[in-house]
Amino acid sequence: MKDAQTNVEQSDEISLLLEDQLCFALYAAQRALTNRYRPLLEQFGLTYPQYLVMLVLWEHGALPIKKLGTLLELDYGTLTPLLKRLEAHGLIQRRRQVEDERSVQITLTDEGSELRGRIRVVPAAIAEAAGLTGNETTDAKTLLEKLHANISASD
Amino acid sequence: MKDAQTNVEQSDEISLLLEDQLCFALYAAQRALTNRYRPLLEQFGLTYPQYLVMLVLWEHGALPIKKLGTLLELDYGTLTPLLKRLEAHGLIQRRRQVEDERSVQITLTDEGSELRGRIRVVPAAIAEAAGLTGNETTDAKTLLEKLHANISASD
Repeated sequence: MKDAQTNVEQSDEISLLLEDQLCFALYAAQRALTNRYRPLLEQFGLTYPQYLVMLVLWEHGALPIKKLGTLLELDYGTLTPLLKRLEAHGLIQRRRQVEDERSVQITLTDEGSELRGRIRVVPAAIAEAAGLTGNETTDAKTLLEKLHANISASD
Repeated sequence: MKDAQTNVEQSDEISLLLEDQLCFALYAAQRALTNRYRPLLEQFGLTYPQYLVMLVLWEHGALPIKKLGTLLELDYGTLTPLLKRLEAHGLIQRRRQVEDERSVQITLTDEGSELRGRIRVVPAAIAEAAGLTGNETTDAKTLLEKLHANISASD
């Protein structure tokens, strides 16, 4: 009786084994994915966070920096140097709004807009490397979004 | 007929929308999770990568630095400063092997071993914040491991 109870208690215990940690699977997958993106994006002179900024701008066109930060969950201190580099590469423009001096509007240059047509080789190569079926991709996205929403709500 | 064909082509197209990117879901979930870990681990004086090192040492006991790097997929240049800080905190010891001067063995100190019993509050708090069922956690881990294995194999 005593032994049976001990076993039940042990199975309820929080595991400290690395292979049992969802967080490690997430960390390792994210690192592998970032490493896979690097050489693909380097051909276009982009880092991964810069690529995310460009995705948002291709989708929304011009955006205030604040909105860009909200969509990408990046703070001002992270975004500013990143946007300065994209501007130096000629892909975007940062314009202070006349009506509100504190607000900076981010717009695509012609070169930035034109990049959209050529960049598709990157997500295509990533999708092939990831090798998940459509359903698996949807399931993974749904679970990650649920995890993300729950964690954000628990702060 | 022409329209129907165009629609099929469009649905096959690679999406550039942020919300369609599995990589962004992964990136955002990983960032949220790391932010959630930070205050929990700070109480024990650990960063997230230091916590991963401790998990591996609690599981395996003493390990050569090379093996530690393999298990955590961290290179020597990343591991060395991290291990030096854990040693300065009195949690581990780094010992050069007598039989092979190039090999460094990592061992837990008594203080490092003792931390294992107190740290369980961290994965317990994370599991609660994540709010996934047992099956969802298993599914997410399986999909992430498959993604990781496929991407690593495609290099």
